Order: sequence, then structure tokens, then C-alpha cells
Amino acid sequence: MRGDAPTLAEIAREAGVSTPTVSKVLNGRSDVAPATRARVEELLQRHGYRRRSSGPPSRLFDLVFHELESAWAMEVIRGVENVARQENLHVVLSESAGRLMPGQSWVDGVLARRPSGVVLVLSDLDATQRTQLASRDIPFVVLDPAGDPAEGVPAVGTNNWLGGLTATRHLIDLGHRRIGMIGGPSRMMCSRARLDGYRAALETAGLPVDLKLVREGDFHFESGYSAGRDLLSRPEPPTAVFAGNDLQALGLYEAARELGLRVPEDLSVVGFDDLPMARWVGPPLTTVRQPLVAMAETAARLALELGRGERPTATRVDLATTLVIRHSTAAPGNV
Amino acid sequence: MRGDAPTLAEIAREAGVSTPTVSKVLNGRSDVAPATRARVEELLQRHGYRRRSSGPPSRLFDLVFHELESAWAMEVIRGVENVARQENLHVVLSESAGRLMPGQSWVDGVLARRPSGVVLVLSDLDATQRTQLASRDIPFVVLDPAGDPAEGVPAVGTNNWLGGLTATRHLIDLGHRRIGMIGGPSRMMCSRARLDGYRAALETAGLPVDLKLVREGDFHFESGYSAGRDLLSRPEPPTAVFAGNDLQALGLYEAARELGLRVPEDLSVVGFDDLPMARWVGPPLTTVRQPLVAMAETAARLALELGRGERPTATRVDLATTLVIRHSTAAPGNV
Repeated sequence: MRGDAPTLAEIAREAGVSTPTVSKVLNGRSDVAPATRARVEELLQRHGYRRRSSGPPSRLFDLVFHELESAWAMEVIRGVENVARQENLHVVLSESAGRLMPGQSWVDGVLARRPSGVVLVLSDLDATQRTQLASRDIPFVVLDPAGDPAEGVPAVGTNNWLGGLTATRHLIDLGHRRIGMIGGPSRMMCSRARLDGYRAALETAGLPVDLKLVREGDFHFESGYSAGRDLLSRPEPPTAVFAGNDLQALGLYEAARELGLRVPEDLSVVGFDDLPMARWVGPPLTTVRQPLVAMAETAARLALELGRGERPTATRVDLATTLVIRHSTAAPGNV
Repeated sequence: MRGDAPTLAEIAREAGVSTPTVSKVLNGRSDVAPATRARVEELLQRHGYRRRSSGPPSRLFDLVFHELESAWAMEVIRGVENVARQENLHVVLSESAGRLMPGQSWVDGVLARRPSGVVLVLSDLDATQRTQLASRDIPFVVLDPAGDPAEGVPAVGTNNWLGGLTATRHLIDLGHRRIGMIGGPSRMMCSRARLDGYRAALETAGLPVDLKLVREGDFHFESGYSAGRDLLSRPEPPTAVFAGNDLQALGLYEAARELGLRVPEDLSVVGFDDLPMARWVGPPLTTVRQPLVAMAETAARLALELGRGERPTATRVDLATTLVIRHSTAAPGNV
């Protein structure tokens, strides 16, 4: 094959179909036989076909969640909406229903509506889906607070390792020496990064890492509660716990209440995320703030820049976390 | 004018424009002079024009919020997403940026994309916008937990009055006699209905309504906090407070903590909404549950039924609230 990309007519000839049929496949229309569609897609992919000009994209912008239940989904929606409003775009919201990859029906829909950009939250596309979007000139960015996007994919995340380090250093600086941690699921890179930040803080302060004080949770309230009951019932319980995220911190609060321990007098607690509710609980939670609204805005703008054919300075961006000190941390009662 | 609706060609002739121009106006296209567009819209409205058949609507479904900051927006999104997933539709999310009425750019977008249905949350359309959507056969339903939709508009809400009654009766049944209330803004019908439910519970129990124990808030944390400080600092403070919504209940928690009062030993608290966080606070909050997910599902289904030309049994539906008893209410310490 020649180096320059083929035209629609050339693809059609090679596939043995009409040019309008290739056009239908490009536009995600369902009235093409599956075998034909597969053959055309294969040729588009093989030749690295990219649509050049077929008019501007639609005034839609796609936002795809892995699951909408996540307590911080609202923050992400607000960030993308902020950009959409400024650009006079409308946001199409999808949920991949717990699958990490959006289904074919979503891809077909996207090809048909040609959004100005796509932000995928904690989801990812497989190689075929990526090629499909690329060949139709639909730009996408992964918003990935979990910290593990596929190579070469434009992505916006946060520095989870630094967040874990900062949280733990804050507790060390207050005078704590027995500091526990309730991590997230070890299959998520962000959990590993936060845990490694916790270890690094202890080690650089010359403190031992005691694995008996580390528990694995699943980022939900209940796991913070049960891991908290467990840690706080030890003969030598920690005087402070880095809870991995805000929901686990609230579960830990509940465990402490049940055991008659006061926060922060008997137990210091640090969360991660800074969900709106972190301000409203008793006591207000010291936590590591992920700038989710700004991350979502950055991801949406990056997708639009890519769509306009601009060359952004960086297509992999991590926004920094900040420690927000409220009232759940204090010097330990008995040092 | 004759009783039967005019054709596009008749509208065009009367407006002195071509039929394709009328068609452009119907499809929300921007390439029509404003004066022409206004004249055509006026004629469409005057003749009660309704598009009969121009193919099926798109696989999109519009969801419009007055403001996305509302803590329960996520619940509503999940409800609409549930229906969309089952019907293989994609949800277009818009925020009217604090205005109670979506702007013309939203209306133009909707006319152009022809969604299968529209749910408006706490927003409403003016008469012109309603006519515009009706003439294009785009069905819409107002999801209105605030309880004040315009007459004749299909709407799904909840029984706020009954919720207020149930919350207050629960406190009376526990033995409380000095029961305060922190209401929402009096311009919102749901605030009035909840307050009236509170009064009705007191009156039917033969208890006096003491207006010194009633405060008006704005449904945010801070107003629960300041009204709470105020009520709890009285010479004869209430032993229980119906907080109007969950966020105000959390503000009241904070006020109680600062004043050294324990919930529920010194103060019983009932919220309204049952946001997810109501389970996670300390103590877990007794509250009136609005079935927001089910309300959103009902509203989306109602819009789709209207769009298919079905005649739903009812186009104004209130779903019932239920009292969820957790640990923030108990018998008063000193009766």
C-alpha cells in the first residue's frame, strides 16, 4: 500500500462494496450487515484511515463513567459541564454499567453522533475501539484518578503517591508513631501509589513500617468500618490512621464511635478525595484533596484541543493533590 | 382558520418564506434570520402545528438541571440512566446555570437533536418553549421535588406534606413536646408543604405550634448550623428538631456538637431526603426518604410513553415518602 491514506472510494473498492456503504460504517449506522461492517472496519484500521473533512463535529460532548455510584462522579460531571457551557456544547452521559470498557452500542452511538470530544472516567477503550474513534477523528481523553491508563492514551490524573506521602507526613509531624493505613483494592494503581506514599513517609522519617497496621479495603464505607474495628481493637492500636479515601474515613469514624474513642483526641484520621461531605461530618475531616472538578475540566479541554488538531504541550497530565487540614487530626494523647 | 392543522407548505405561504425555511425553523437550525424565525414560530404556535411524521426521534434523552450542585442530583441522574440503559438511549445532561428556565440555546439544541424525551429537574419551560417542543413532538416531564409545576405540565414529585407530618409524628410518639423545625426557603412549595405537615402533626396531637421554635433556612449545611445555634441557645431549647432536609440536619449536628449536646441523648434530629451520606454520619440520621431514583425513573418513563403517543393513566404523579429510622432520634432525656 502507498504511504498516503486511501480515499473512501479506494476502501470501498478493496472491500467490494459501494462508497455509501463505507460511509455508513464510518457513521455508525446499523443498517450494514455485520460481516461487511467487520471487513470495512478491518480495512479502515489496516490503512490507518482518518476522516479529513466531513463538516464540523456535533455540539455534543461524551462523558462515560465506569459506574455512576461513585461518590465523586458529581464533581466530575460539574467539571465537564463547566467546559461544555463555555463552549456551547451539550454533555451526553453514559455508564458502562460496571464494565471497564464501554460496549459496542456506545461506540456505534458515538460514531453516529460525532461528538466534539469524549472523556472516559476510569474506563478505557480497547485497541479496536481506539482505532474506530481515531478513524472518525473523534478525540478522547481518559480521566483516571485510579492512575493506570493504557500507554499512549491521553489522560488526566492526580499524584496519588504524593497524596499518600503528604497525609502520612502530616500525622508524623503531629507526633504520631503508630500510624495505620486502610488502603483501597490492590488491583487499582491509585491504591498502590497511596500505600507507597505512606511507606515512603514512614521510612524517610526513620519509622518502621508495621504491616499489622495496614489493611486492604474497597473504598466503601463498610470496609473502613470493618478494617477500623479490627485495627482499633488491637492490643496496641494505632493513634492515627490514613484512611485511603473519605468514605473509608467515615467508616473508621463509626468504628471509633462504637468503641468509645473520640476523634481527634483518641484517634487522628486523614481521608483522601475531599468530597463535599468531608466538611459536614463531625469532626470535619482532614483529607487529601483531589481537584476533581479541575481534573475534569482539564480532560475536557484536552479532548477539544486534540479535536481541533492542536498539539497540546502534554497529553498525560497529573494535577497535584493538597492537604486540607480540618479537625480530625491532632497530637496523640499519650506519646 | 380551519380546524385541521395546516401543512408546512401552508405555514410557509402564510409566512412568505419557502417550505425548507419552515423546516429549518422546526429543526432548530441557526441559519434562519431571527425575524423570519420569529414569524414562523408565531404561525406554528397560532395554528397549533404539530409535526406528524418525520421519522423516529434520536436515541438521545435530555435531562436538564436547574443546578448540578444539589446534593441529590446524582440520584436523579442514576434514575434516568437506568431507564436510558434499558431503552438503549443516551442521556444529554444540561444545567440551566441557576436560571429556573433553560435558555434559548438549549431549546435550539433540543429541536436540532430531537431527543426521545426530556426530563426537567426543578426547571420549567415558559409557554413559548412548551409550544416549541410540542410542535416538534418532543415530550417532556418536570421532575419536581419542590412541588410547584406549572398547570397542565406532566410532572413527578413527592408528597412533602406527608413527609413533614410523618417526621414530626415520629418525634411526638417518642415523647417530645418542644419540637423545633428548620424549614427551607418559603418561596419553594416543598418548604411550605413540609412546614404545614409539621404543624398538622402538632395540632392533631393537641400540641401548640410555637413559632419561636421555627426557623427558615435555605436547605444548605450552613443555614442548619446557624438556625441550630440559635434554637439550641434559647432558654428553653427544643428537645427535638425536624431539620427540613439532610444537609440542614448535618449543620444542626455541628451546632449541637459545639454546644456540647449529644444526639440523640440531648437532642433528636430528623432530616429529609435520605441522601447516601445520611447512613454514614454519626449518629446515622433518621430521615424522610424521597425515592429520588424511582421518581427520576418514573419521569423518564412517562416522557417516553407520551412520546410514543400512549395515554398514561396519570401525568401528575407523587411518589410517597417513607420514614427511615436510624440513630438520631430517641425519647427526650427529661420529659
